[in-house]
Amino acid sequence: MTTAKKEVQFINIAETEGGESSTDGEKEETGKSNENGDLKTQEIIEKTEAKILLAATLVLDAKRGRNINFKTEEKFVRSYLFYHSWYLRWGLYAFIILDLSLAFIEKPAVSFEAPYWATILLEIVCLVFFVSRFCHAAYVEQSSSFWKDTKHLIVLSTIILTVLDIICYIIWNQVAPDTNPVRWSRPLRPLFIINFSDGKQVRRAFRNIRRTVPEIMNVLILFFLSVLLFALLALKLFSKRNSLEYPNGDPYFKNYWDCIWDLYVLVTTANNPDVMMPAYDYSNWFALFFIAYVIVCLYIFMSIVLAAIYNNYKKNLKNEIRTSVYSKRRKLNRAFEILKDKVGSQYVITQETWNRLMKKILPTKSQQQLDLLLRILDSDGENVLKKTQFINLSDLLHVELSEVTDRQTFLEHKIPSIYNHKVSKAIRWVVRTRGFRWSFDFLIFVNAFFIAFDLDDADMFFLIFFSLEILLKLYTYGPKGFIARFWNVFDVLVIGSAVLASIIEVSIGTSSEEFRTLDVLLVLRVMRLIKLFGSIQSFRNQNARFKVIIMTIVNIGPSILTYGGVIFVFYYFYAIIGMEVFGNKIHFYGYNGTDLDPLKKHCGNPKLENSDFYNSHYCNNNFNNILKAFVVLFELTVVNQWHVLSSGFVIVTHKAARFYFFCFHLTCVVIVLNIFTAFILEAFILEYSLQKQPRLESVVEAKIKELGLGIGLKPVTPVKPKNDTIELVENEEEPAGSSNEPEDDSDTESIPDLSQEQGLRFHLKKRSRKKVEVLLHQMFEGEIDAEDEGPENEDHEPRKRRLTLETV
Amino acid sequence: MTTAKKEVQFINIAETEGGESSTDGEKEETGKSNENGDLKTQEIIEKTEAKILLAATLVLDAKRGRNINFKTEEKFVRSYLFYHSWYLRWGLYAFIILDLSLAFIEKPAVSFEAPYWATILLEIVCLVFFVSRFCHAAYVEQSSSFWKDTKHLIVLSTIILTVLDIICYIIWNQVAPDTNPVRWSRPLRPLFIINFSDGKQVRRAFRNIRRTVPEIMNVLILFFLSVLLFALLALKLFSKRNSLEYPNGDPYFKNYWDCIWDLYVLVTTANNPDVMMPAYDYSNWFALFFIAYVIVCLYIFMSIVLAAIYNNYKKNLKNEIRTSVYSKRRKLNRAFEILKDKVGSQYVITQETWNRLMKKILPTKSQQQLDLLLRILDSDGENVLKKTQFINLSDLLHVELSEVTDRQTFLEHKIPSIYNHKVSKAIRWVVRTRGFRWSFDFLIFVNAFFIAFDLDDADMFFLIFFSLEILLKLYTYGPKGFIARFWNVFDVLVIGSAVLASIIEVSIGTSSEEFRTLDVLLVLRVMRLIKLFGSIQSFRNQNARFKVIIMTIVNIGPSILTYGGVIFVFYYFYAIIGMEVFGNKIHFYGYNGTDLDPLKKHCGNPKLENSDFYNSHYCNNNFNNILKAFVVLFELTVVNQWHVLSSGFVIVTHKAARFYFFCFHLTCVVIVLNIFTAFILEAFILEYSLQKQPRLESVVEAKIKELGLGIGLKPVTPVKPKNDTIELVENEEEPAGSSNEPEDDSDTESIPDLSQEQGLRFHLKKRSRKKVEVLLHQMFEGEIDAEDEGPENEDHEPRKRRLTLETV
Repeated sequence: MTTAKKEVQFINIAETEGGESSTDGEKEETGKSNENGDLKTQEIIEKTEAKILLAATLVLDAKRGRNINFKTEEKFVRSYLFYHSWYLRWGLYAFIILDLSLAFIEKPAVSFEAPYWATILLEIVCLVFFVSRFCHAAYVEQSSSFWKDTKHLIVLSTIILTVLDIICYIIWNQVAPDTNPVRWSRPLRPLFIINFSDGKQVRRAFRNIRRTVPEIMNVLILFFLSVLLFALLALKLFSKRNSLEYPNGDPYFKNYWDCIWDLYVLVTTANNPDVMMPAYDYSNWFALFFIAYVIVCLYIFMSIVLAAIYNNYKKNLKNEIRTSVYSKRRKLNRAFEILKDKVGSQYVITQETWNRLMKKILPTKSQQQLDLLLRILDSDGENVLKKTQFINLSDLLHVELSEVTDRQTFLEHKIPSIYNHKVSKAIRWVVRTRGFRWSFDFLIFVNAFFIAFDLDDADMFFLIFFSLEILLKLYTYGPKGFIARFWNVFDVLVIGSAVLASIIEVSIGTSSEEFRTLDVLLVLRVMRLIKLFGSIQSFRNQNARFKVIIMTIVNIGPSILTYGGVIFVFYYFYAIIGMEVFGNKIHFYGYNGTDLDPLKKHCGNPKLENSDFYNSHYCNNNFNNILKAFVVLFELTVVNQWHVLSSGFVIVTHKAARFYFFCFHLTCVVIVLNIFTAFILEAFILEYSLQKQPRLESVVEAKIKELGLGIGLKPVTPVKPKNDTIELVENEEEPAGSSNEPEDDSDTESIPDLSQEQGLRFHLKKRSRKKVEVLLHQMFEGEIDAEDEGPENEDHEPRKRRLTLETV
Repeated sequence: MTTAKKEVQFINIAETEGGESSTDGEKEETGKSNENGDLKTQEIIEKTEAKILLAATLVLDAKRGRNINFKTEEKFVRSYLFYHSWYLRWGLYAFIILDLSLAFIEKPAVSFEAPYWATILLEIVCLVFFVSRFCHAAYVEQSSSFWKDTKHLIVLSTIILTVLDIICYIIWNQVAPDTNPVRWSRPLRPLFIINFSDGKQVRRAFRNIRRTVPEIMNVLILFFLSVLLFALLALKLFSKRNSLEYPNGDPYFKNYWDCIWDLYVLVTTANNPDVMMPAYDYSNWFALFFIAYVIVCLYIFMSIVLAAIYNNYKKNLKNEIRTSVYSKRRKLNRAFEILKDKVGSQYVITQETWNRLMKKILPTKSQQQLDLLLRILDSDGENVLKKTQFINLSDLLHVELSEVTDRQTFLEHKIPSIYNHKVSKAIRWVVRTRGFRWSFDFLIFVNAFFIAFDLDDADMFFLIFFSLEILLKLYTYGPKGFIARFWNVFDVLVIGSAVLASIIEVSIGTSSEEFRTLDVLLVLRVMRLIKLFGSIQSFRNQNARFKVIIMTIVNIGPSILTYGGVIFVFYYFYAIIGMEVFGNKIHFYGYNGTDLDPLKKHCGNPKLENSDFYNSHYCNNNFNNILKAFVVLFELTVVNQWHVLSSGFVIVTHKAARFYFFCFHLTCVVIVLNIFTAFILEAFILEYSLQKQPRLESVVEAKIKELGLGIGLKPVTPVKPKNDTIELVENEEEPAGSSNEPEDDSDTESIPDLSQEQGLRFHLKKRSRKKVEVLLHQMFEGEIDAEDEGPENEDHEPRKRRLTLETV
């Protein structure tokens, strides 16, 4: 092939959006660069492999949002890439999980208790890995920034403390094994989750908490002052009235500490109205005291705590977004500075440099694909990249690219003759119609009735039908297209498990006294009905509000896992402490007092006789192993009756135990749960705003759309009116012959109904399926100047703007 | 005096900020208008009294935010002004309160039960007033808009229904007095609060609720679907396990309605963990079901409900602000159109028209003051008002204006010789020093310790000291300056009442078995300690965050009263229904089972034996009179144990009674309380944003500051550097000779320390003391164009703007 022909072909890619392009682009570049004369070739030689590697690493860091200031010599860069290799990362996760799971087999073990030397040995293995990981990080990172980084210092001190603890414990255990030696470093274990550099999301949530706490400290101080004042008042009012007492005979506001405790519990509403009743029975006017207290401390102060947390959350979120966008920009700029050549009067990245760079970043992609990527970034069609164009590279790398063959269904690829046969086509047409979906939606409604009225025998029939639905869809859309849709994956899980469980049930029989498989089947059967939500969602054209809500729930899914991680860290910390302090003080032996061995009466602890804790049958809520501890902590998080739970543990230990429960409530309920609420508020409001503002896409996505390179997209320019008509038809009840009707609940912009076309296609995520964070990123990038790299100080305040009605 | 001299003098007012100006300005205008020739005088004659009156009414409506489309003929305008006269307004309030208070003496009466004809007679008197008020409104308002207004229709139908009910009741009572006749219209009474046109704030809150409910309906539907699904699952899982039951023997998830009820109660957390314990004791794995339920329905859905409500609240608030700003503009524009004269090429309001208008609006103000007001509006100094200047009139009318004599303290005015004596001056100097305030702050700390350690005898000493403090401050600042500060008023109330109660106690003696006065004294004594918050606040230069929080609490005070009104409407409605349904089913006779008359056992209702309700000693929570009903409803609002309260009333009536409690929870807790939280969130965030954005003032305030006409203000232009030095000194510990040191916790811009100066002064409210609504108004007025009167449709959507990081 001649260069001229290739030139034509290259233009072809752009203009016909996906003509066939040659794959041996190497030659072309060499030809091109030769044209530019000697000066340039010299420069290209100067760009050693090491430099390209460094630039590629910077680009990858920008793409993944990593923020490590690594050393730039080649061996360190290679070591840095090795540091981030997937096996070391997953190895770290595995060892952290192993370290945390030790709690299952350590002393108050769930079922099997390992000897102490075994757990310590396992822990040492984990520690060795952590130390090596730590040293690796110290080796690749600039030492100036490494030793200033709090997370490294925390990891180091946690490792040192754990080693000290292990030594202490072994000595203690040798010297005085009967004094119940304590492994006091165990609550520190979850710090590894936060502080190893891969737990980014969780660490960000913790940073948010750390920054929020000082801000809300003032509210909390005022709040506690109010509680102290009211407690003083309660003491003055009620302590001298000796006839006042709780129904079970407990003293009623008789000393100051109890007053504070009772009123603090009242803020959590857990002892309302019990705490009021004795005084209210004594004189109706005393109700005013409690009403005033609840209004001031609960309704006003707790709302203000939420407001302060929400406000700080918003502020911190925006700062985080700004910081990370600017840091990405700086990385890409550094990469550009390394790669740039002078062409004419401008510094640009030439096509050859581009190819060398991309071979490092995306080694598996073909030359044709790399050319296409360049073509998208290169908005002015000069085949070289300016700085402002290069900056969009990390966005582009986030967009998935596939070739035609990837988009053919598996069967179309393997047995095209059968797959494209008339009958097969007819089946696929039927599956794609709206009627098909609706009939199965209707079937779910019918199923709901059958389940509600306990007609379990018909279930096999439903199971077969739903399995058939899955198979048909799988056949029509192919594995990839099928899996792209949330409800399909859901179906496979629920129906598949149900089929599996049915088989197990038939083979084992229902004789098991716990009938576990039957329970599982039942749960799966009812879970099938969740698809009803999906059916509601599919009417969303008629009702856009449902969409906002369902989209919010779907989008916050991953981030809820982050908060799950945060909560887990706190739970683990408190659970280990709780197991040390309250372990084995309370046992659950059932409540049939007369039948029981006297030692097992009152939860195995005679002090609990006549306590509210025992009378409420709470004995199974204990700290005897880590799972039970987690359940107790969850109950404390839900707050209700937490004072009864804590009263039980206070009775079997000491009043100071209240401090443990108070701290847990303050950290997990007042702070973490409110931050979680703040997060949902922000996510919801963002989704809602976007509903009214349909256009929000990155520069790269806009360019892809303009070129018509997204899946199912045509170039934006001329075809518009036709598109509109199609949409009009779609809104009607049953479009005539809608063989390629796009089902809009898929993950990508539309179903690959244009799969017969040739060429490369990008999978553009639908706006509503992007994570909140990505949306905020794009929003902010749209706001700032393309050249803006932000102020030098990373923790800068946002620029002050004029206050308008919209911004508050 | 010649005109020339007056001209000079007039400039004097502006430039020396407050020289003495003549008060007979009438002559001046006449002179001026003569200069403008015959055409103008003719126009002035055309502006009849009626037109001026109409314009003045429009201006007053704009100032007060009234929105009634009244008829413009003179007799209707006069009737309209009469309609808004203070005695008719307060009469309306009085009759509404009378109507609502009838519940105290109607059948389940609090103490004295009036015969039914007496209450009906009183109600008829109220109705007669309401009807006359209604007819008056119908008379003055354009009938086209009157009969379209929902609030009038609601008032009319409520009146008709009440009359019907009265007739029914009388007949029923005559025919069958023993069948317990029902006054079914009583729950409608609070509708008068909302729908008479003066309850603007409460109506606005209700409008907000009405607009929010459809928006959150989708979330609620999804939420209830989830509850139904989980209830189905619970039924399937637990109903077949016969060994499962509650500790008190109640069936455990045995029928579908109970499942739904138990799980709905679990969303409110009220029965956690009790509802889980039987299943958890049976098999630990069942905990997963409840944990999943709580996470989905409580943490996710309830947060989304809050988010949806908050989002709508924000949107509605902004729409309200826009609507009311535009409506104010339109009113002022109409007034301008009525008053305008053509001078040169422009339409303006001449000084004469201005004077005639202002004589109607502010009949008590002197001519000098009116000139000053004109001077402030007239930003270009032409002595005529353009439309864009006239539009600021309503803002100007909100700024309080006072003359020098008003600002002298009472004593300075009466006995200047003593007041300005050396000793007196020295005392006043001492009182104004920081040391004076600090020593009394310290005294409160000491007092706190005395109270905490029960040293009651020293209290008389403290009382005398604090009284002295009040007297000294009163002497120094004068009654007006004294009352302007929140903490002073607080002091007077707390210390004054304590002095009064002490006198009563001494004269009556402490023999009373309830020792009521002692209790009151105690409460007052502890309340004194609230001033500690004030002391913290006064360190706010060092800690601006405390200020935000305290300012938020202070600013939301009045609006909390609005929500108090909303809650009262709901409470009254539910209380009346509750009294009809549950009245006298449960009585409180104490719990000493053995001593009691068998009829009085178990709260007078044998069905309650062994119920949780009786065992928790909740019998005093009943619907036997309206006050008790309010307490029960408050307890239901706090939510905890509401299922036990409702179970009691279910036992004595029927399971359908759950519907009453469910509705109450849904309306008052899920909707109203969340709207209240949304309000506090918004208020807090606004205050916080303003903290960072010190400049937010209306055009009028800016002009007043520029002219240096605010109290304690100098003209902005030259004196700035000096001011800065003063501020620097102030920030130091103890400024040398700070005789006029401003105490910055006052209500106005600064203390009248320049009171020796002459002339008129405006009281500018400090930014942080303005109500949230006023701030939003100013913010929006700053955004829109001076000519912009808004779109014609009042309920318009906000203009769409680009989505930025700041706006979300």
